[in-house]
Amino acid sequence: MKLVLVAGATETARIDGISAAGASPELMAHTPAADAELVEYGTPVFAPFVPVSPDGCPTPGLVTRAVRDRVEFEFVVADAGMAAPTAAPAIRVGERPGGDLREAAPVPNARELFETAREVGANLPDEELLLAESIPGGTTTALGVLRALGEPHGVSSSLPDNPLSLKERVVAEGLAESGIEAGALAGDPLAAVREMGDPTLAVTAGLLAGALSRGARVTLAGGTQMLAAASVARHAGVEDEFAVATTSFVAEDETVAIEAAADALGVTLHVTDPEFEPGEHVATDHYLAGVAKEGVGMGGALWLAARAGVEMRDVRDRLFARYDALVGADGP
Amino acid sequence: MKLVLVAGATETARIDGISAAGASPELMAHTPAADAELVEYGTPVFAPFVPVSPDGCPTPGLVTRAVRDRVEFEFVVADAGMAAPTAAPAIRVGERPGGDLREAAPVPNARELFETAREVGANLPDEELLLAESIPGGTTTALGVLRALGEPHGVSSSLPDNPLSLKERVVAEGLAESGIEAGALAGDPLAAVREMGDPTLAVTAGLLAGALSRGARVTLAGGTQMLAAASVARHAGVEDEFAVATTSFVAEDETVAIEAAADALGVTLHVTDPEFEPGEHVATDHYLAGVAKEGVGMGGALWLAARAGVEMRDVRDRLFARYDALVGADGP
Repeated sequence: MKLVLVAGATETARIDGISAAGASPELMAHTPAADAELVEYGTPVFAPFVPVSPDGCPTPGLVTRAVRDRVEFEFVVADAGMAAPTAAPAIRVGERPGGDLREAAPVPNARELFETAREVGANLPDEELLLAESIPGGTTTALGVLRALGEPHGVSSSLPDNPLSLKERVVAEGLAESGIEAGALAGDPLAAVREMGDPTLAVTAGLLAGALSRGARVTLAGGTQMLAAASVARHAGVEDEFAVATTSFVAEDETVAIEAAADALGVTLHVTDPEFEPGEHVATDHYLAGVAKEGVGMGGALWLAARAGVEMRDVRDRLFARYDALVGADGP
Repeated sequence: MKLVLVAGATETARIDGISAAGASPELMAHTPAADAELVEYGTPVFAPFVPVSPDGCPTPGLVTRAVRDRVEFEFVVADAGMAAPTAAPAIRVGERPGGDLREAAPVPNARELFETAREVGANLPDEELLLAESIPGGTTTALGVLRALGEPHGVSSSLPDNPLSLKERVVAEGLAESGIEAGALAGDPLAAVREMGDPTLAVTAGLLAGALSRGARVTLAGGTQMLAAASVARHAGVEDEFAVATTSFVAEDETVAIEAAADALGVTLHVTDPEFEPGEHVATDHYLAGVAKEGVGMGGALWLAARAGVEMRDVRDRLFARYDALVGADGP
């Protein structure tokens, strides 16, 4: 079992109010690198910080790392073109961040990214893969691709008050700039990523297609960004069975009907509740308030833990221990 | 146990007659990428070929892969600035190939490479590491660094007739161009790498220093390039114990007195004989004739096999099976 973290960047994240994945655009560039290092080493190495929001909400990568303290799985980054270097082992698929989706062709090399990732997915030796993501701004580009493909699903947010109307406005602007109507790129998913997406969507869909082509079992570990990647794969003609594993926070998000979306896409959905308890710890209280929700494979990692018979109590203890050691018991 | 393959490039390899690690300079650029893919996946992925000399001598990476079929170990690339992309998981330490050692400062960022690699070595979670190399032209830059440091040891070659006088001439030219006498950079090993070395030497020495600083057991898996990396570390003040594991082909090379060199450097030496038998297979006959000798961790991998009680017969069978499948039973 290997978790592949598709890490990348999009200039879309610089739009004010879009993402909670970092205190400023400059710092946000390091979030995927830091996430990867947390999962691999348990501590930042090249990255200058642990991704924790100013009021103390830790990156979901810390939950994934907490699970890895209890369930053995391999880990590698698929570098879709990161904005900052990571010390975690990475397969370099892309070379540069994606542009702002409001511009024409923010991912000009979408097709090449997909093909390269497909080759990687077809050669990875693992019989079972979890694919995850870390990209600030990724739910907005996911929405962009879903709209370009004509898929009706909504997207989640790392913010408790999902700035959905801002996202819809940004996406409408992007569609106008690219000169396309919603749904105009159904059946041409890599054009949809090129015009409205980010590099991780092309890489995730490519890894998925390649791994399925050799009979691997694949689970997309994440929320609405993974639904967008799944949509790209389905529109590219991938018909094989695969699954999506996400958190209860995404499943309970009213802006997302993830079960209906999974049904429509023909994918199996696993929802895992980490059983966070109110008032127990600053690290988890934020999640209960709707911050972060998912990312860095959190939902997939929790599913692995449940499958392996690890108690959620045990995962939470590891999370608290790591948070206290990295951030401090009282938050930042 | 993890094998870290330090992979990189030096323009020095373009000098006529220096290296057997690829049919042409253009193809040689892909050799480290292909080596890494062979060890990780058993087959080239991004690389356009299996590194096999025109008359059929396979890269020592295929021996390392054969061992990995029988002995479990983790694997990752430390990318010191590769000339071609690899699909193998890599920690990116450097960004670009080194220059020709005959020019001034072929590795201007030697100190930065060392420091970055030291940080990586200090954070890798493994209690035991093998460090290996893949860089065409690497024995010539190794000789350059040994001479700049005033170390008297000779170097091996991937060619049966070691072009040692050519290497000495190239090194003399490099010293003159850098305006230094032999031995002038003793005690300033990163200046020696900057002026006369290649990026992998700085990265290998940095990984070694970092891993030793946290108490890991480290074995340099290779021949005379690893002696040069060990010299860099010793001149940088690293006093901890570590080992070098190499093949019997290097130990029997008359241009190299590897036991005396190991003694002088205060490192434990492991020599492992793969027990190749004349006439048994084209893949091994070339080694018996003095081609390749070592590289891509071959000597360290053979030592792991011996330590694990795996018969050399068994390693050879895996090597022949992989060679026949990738190249053809009669060679290329």
